[in-house]
Amino acid sequence: VALGSRALTVWLSDGSCFPGQLNFRKAFMHTLEGLQEIYAALPADWKLFVEYKAYEPNFYSMTVGDWGQSLLYASRLGPQAYTLVDLGHHLPNANIEQIVSLLLMEGKLGGFHFNDSKYGDDDLTAGSVKPYQLFLIFNELVEGMDARGMDHADDLGWMIDASHNVKDPLEDLLQSVEAIMLAYAQALCVDRRALADAQAANDPVAAQEVLQDAFRRDLRPLLAEARLRSGGALQPLQYFREAGVRAALIAERGRNTQATGL
Amino acid sequence: VALGSRALTVWLSDGSCFPGQLNFRKAFMHTLEGLQEIYAALPADWKLFVEYKAYEPNFYSMTVGDWGQSLLYASRLGPQAYTLVDLGHHLPNANIEQIVSLLLMEGKLGGFHFNDSKYGDDDLTAGSVKPYQLFLIFNELVEGMDARGMDHADDLGWMIDASHNVKDPLEDLLQSVEAIMLAYAQALCVDRRALADAQAANDPVAAQEVLQDAFRRDLRPLLAEARLRSGGALQPLQYFREAGVRAALIAERGRNTQATGL
Amino acid sequence: VALGSRALTVWLSDGSCFPGQLNFRKAFMHTLEGLQEIYAALPADWKLFVEYKAYEPNFYSMTVGDWGQSLLYASRLGPQAYTLVDLGHHLPNANIEQIVSLLLMEGKLGGFHFNDSKYGDDDLTAGSVKPYQLFLIFNELVEGMDARGMDHADDLGWMIDASHNVKDPLEDLLQSVEAIMLAYAQALCVDRRALADAQAANDPVAAQEVLQDAFRRDLRPLLAEARLRSGGALQPLQYFREAGVRAALIAERGRNTQATGL
Amino acid sequence: VALGSRALTVWLSDGSCFPGQLNFRKAFMHTLEGLQEIYAALPADWKLFVEYKAYEPNFYSMTVGDWGQSLLYASRLGPQAYTLVDLGHHLPNANIEQIVSLLLMEGKLGGFHFNDSKYGDDDLTAGSVKPYQLFLIFNELVEGMDARGMDHADDLGWMIDASHNVKDPLEDLLQSVEAIMLAYAQALCVDRRALADAQAANDPVAAQEVLQDAFRRDLRPLLAEARLRSGGALQPLQYFREAGVRAALIAERGRNTQATGL
Repeated sequence: VALGSRALTVWLSDGSCFPGQLNFRKAFMHTLEGLQEIYAALPADWKLFVEYKAYEPNFYSMTVGDWGQSLLYASRLGPQAYTLVDLGHHLPNANIEQIVSLLLMEGKLGGFHFNDSKYGDDDLTAGSVKPYQLFLIFNELVEGMDARGMDHADDLGWMIDASHNVKDPLEDLLQSVEAIMLAYAQALCVDRRALADAQAANDPVAAQEVLQDAFRRDLRPLLAEARLRSGGALQPLQYFREAGVRAALIAERGRNTQATGL
Repeated sequence: VALGSRALTVWLSDGSCFPGQLNFRKAFMHTLEGLQEIYAALPADWKLFVEYKAYEPNFYSMTVGDWGQSLLYASRLGPQAYTLVDLGHHLPNANIEQIVSLLLMEGKLGGFHFNDSKYGDDDLTAGSVKPYQLFLIFNELVEGMDARGMDHADDLGWMIDASHNVKDPLEDLLQSVEAIMLAYAQALCVDRRALADAQAANDPVAAQEVLQDAFRRDLRPLLAEARLRSGGALQPLQYFREAGVRAALIAERGRNTQATGL
Repeated sequence: VALGSRALTVWLSDGSCFPGQLNFRKAFMHTLEGLQEIYAALPADWKLFVEYKAYEPNFYSMTVGDWGQSLLYASRLGPQAYTLVDLGHHLPNANIEQIVSLLLMEGKLGGFHFNDSKYGDDDLTAGSVKPYQLFLIFNELVEGMDARGMDHADDLGWMIDASHNVKDPLEDLLQSVEAIMLAYAQALCVDRRALADAQAANDPVAAQEVLQDAFRRDLRPLLAEARLRSGGALQPLQYFREAGVRAALIAERGRNTQATGL
Repeated sequence: VALGSRALTVWLSDGSCFPGQLNFRKAFMHTLEGLQEIYAALPADWKLFVEYKAYEPNFYSMTVGDWGQSLLYASRLGPQAYTLVDLGHHLPNANIEQIVSLLLMEGKLGGFHFNDSKYGDDDLTAGSVKPYQLFLIFNELVEGMDARGMDHADDLGWMIDASHNVKDPLEDLLQSVEAIMLAYAQALCVDRRALADAQAANDPVAAQEVLQDAFRRDLRPLLAEARLRSGGALQPLQYFREAGVRAALIAERGRNTQATGL
């Protein structure tokens, strides 16, 4: 409250390492009781996000292992509780865009942790490995939020959750933001009427053309112009490097102060 | 009704092959409407099982893709609707025993399609690839059914769903039934009090010992004796081969009549 | 030979369904003996492609299960034998572009079966699900073929291997070809010197910028112009539909003649 | 050499996090050059083990990503170089027992890091999640080593590579060793002639019966007796707990000295 926050993300890196270690049902009920205590103390205008994750290293089960479990918790807790989707928290090959669509349908999508991954919860730069998947997720977001009359900016929690072992964290963020804005802008370009017509006509060839026509567009100039008009840099990454922002920040804060960018 | 059946399994091999082909939300709502019509016509003592499956060959999305979606359908439909678990219908590495436990907790586990698999929905003989997973599932079933006071024999639908490309289908069934009975008998041998104590003491070493002590027991002689007492063969597979049951059935029914055993 | 062919693809949908069914070593040796007989009869200017695949439905093991096994066969057979890569024939999350790079390094990449997939060997339209992966593969192909002085058009076998349950097969092919040409054209746009510099400087931010700068370009107008100059249609799919090519082909060949397009 | 060691395991937690970061071919060649330097300095009676791993958290590619790559390195290095198999270092659903069989066939299997896992490189107690897979691996080992006339004890490197976040590390080791010995003893019980007959007769039903007959046997009393005869405890875990070995070790070494058991 003191920070001006309006949402609380509950992320439980909890579960078991071995078969038999936990009684799944009791673990669920204990977790629910804990969440209910937290929920009861929640200010009336706050949201509670229940994050799920398929697995952690060294684990055999997770206390909130998938969107179905998260939705069970959120439904039991009440109208201020929602499911949070982290793109890296799924089993191999999961269709995340379908999960997003169904959570929106249920009125229970709370927000996102954006990142990308090749194998697991790799927390790589958003859009660096699977940019088309990111676009497909935004395609569902735009369609589903509009269908519910939601506000694109305010009605979901938009977060980036990436780690930076080999990249400057601010450069990583600049690349993530660019990829997310591109995916969002491309999703806004989807010809909704043509897509609905193709779906109604059972014409997957045409539906694919509609989606890929939006995805194949090079919207980088458009984004750059929009950034310029709102007082930003045309090329944020280039500016960051050429203007020596990192060096200036270090000079200002000292080398040992972690400027995490998070 | 004419067949004396009391349950209906709805298995929708439906979904989409390409991104954009379907509006996920509308597909869900259309499917729900169809299920509601079926449900409305259901006799009062029947159950409706909603089967889920992660993927089909050549598919991009499934209309009932996971247990979470199946549970949404079953909850919307009403108290006669349940989720059906087919062991091969999950994404890689899914923790099926946890799903079983949570569905029991919700009172929404309808039954099983037993089989085994290495990669996908392979419909191999139950217990032929992952016998310990089969035991862990029965461990949850015994614990969860007892916790709800359920009848082991009657309160769930027990089905075998295997295909037989390289095995005699009756021999495959005999092997499946043996594996399922072994897993069930082993699960009954689990020392519930010792397991609960180990869980309460946060002692995964002891919990693992309790489970594996049951699984490592060779209960084949016990099963054989039980079969004998109920009028069956001590060694069903050996009997089937030595008594020439297959040849006798062919002589009786003709070679072209398919005796599928299913 | 009569058909004017110069390559033979050996695709063995062989393996085992159950543990114990096969002796893996003997199966490998028997397969090798068979391939050696075929290889011995191969015309001197022909290539033999050994295709691999991680799994088939209902299988427990494959006789040629991954690129490592295919490479073993191809190496034992001799200089006319190569590995064939089908994009859908891998375990979940496999890094196909790395496999492509290493096979080129070994001089043993024979060619491709292009398609796309969400879960397994789905044989969907190339580029319909993971267009960035397709680009990354072409990025390795262009770099690796140039490094070996190979001819882009002639030194590899380029094949499309898709199935068409819900699309007109010719329309599917038109979409696949467009996606493949886009990925190839984008790969040709990669600034090789800048990429090598970024790699040498251990600068993954810059390396990603170089790759995505090529991928984000909208090269559809360029492809259309190139098609026009070579006597093709600017918009092949649109032309196919508006000119009624399918109807004309049916009128010419009859409805029952399968015009598979393959 | 000073330690009396005779083998060196090279485990490279190396690779790249993002597409474009590495040139795969050059990374392979650089790694090979490094390994060649190490190999050249290897005492004549030493082995070099090249470990592979499919992925690390936060990675996009691995420098030695699978058994095929490890085999390429080991083959280029020479007769003292071998592939090391860690059971947790594979993509989902990999058939590890087939890899083991083929590496033995090639004379390039160096040894093992035993552990178990549900999702990735979880380093859980051997046999705690997939005991039948462990048995199937030993089934290949016994068959393949005997076919090559290898010494079961000396010709491979047997290592346990587990981590212990929630178990006492010595208790974890005792459970791992018991599981490995059980799998080995069960594999020794496989009726090799009957299995070969079933394979030759293309009878997967019988082959499965042979394997499962060995696996279903409760060999724990046999192992206990063997341990007793060689001066060990009948029930090592029970002895460890009841005799207070951990407390005695702490008293002897001090609490802050890490008695890792590794």
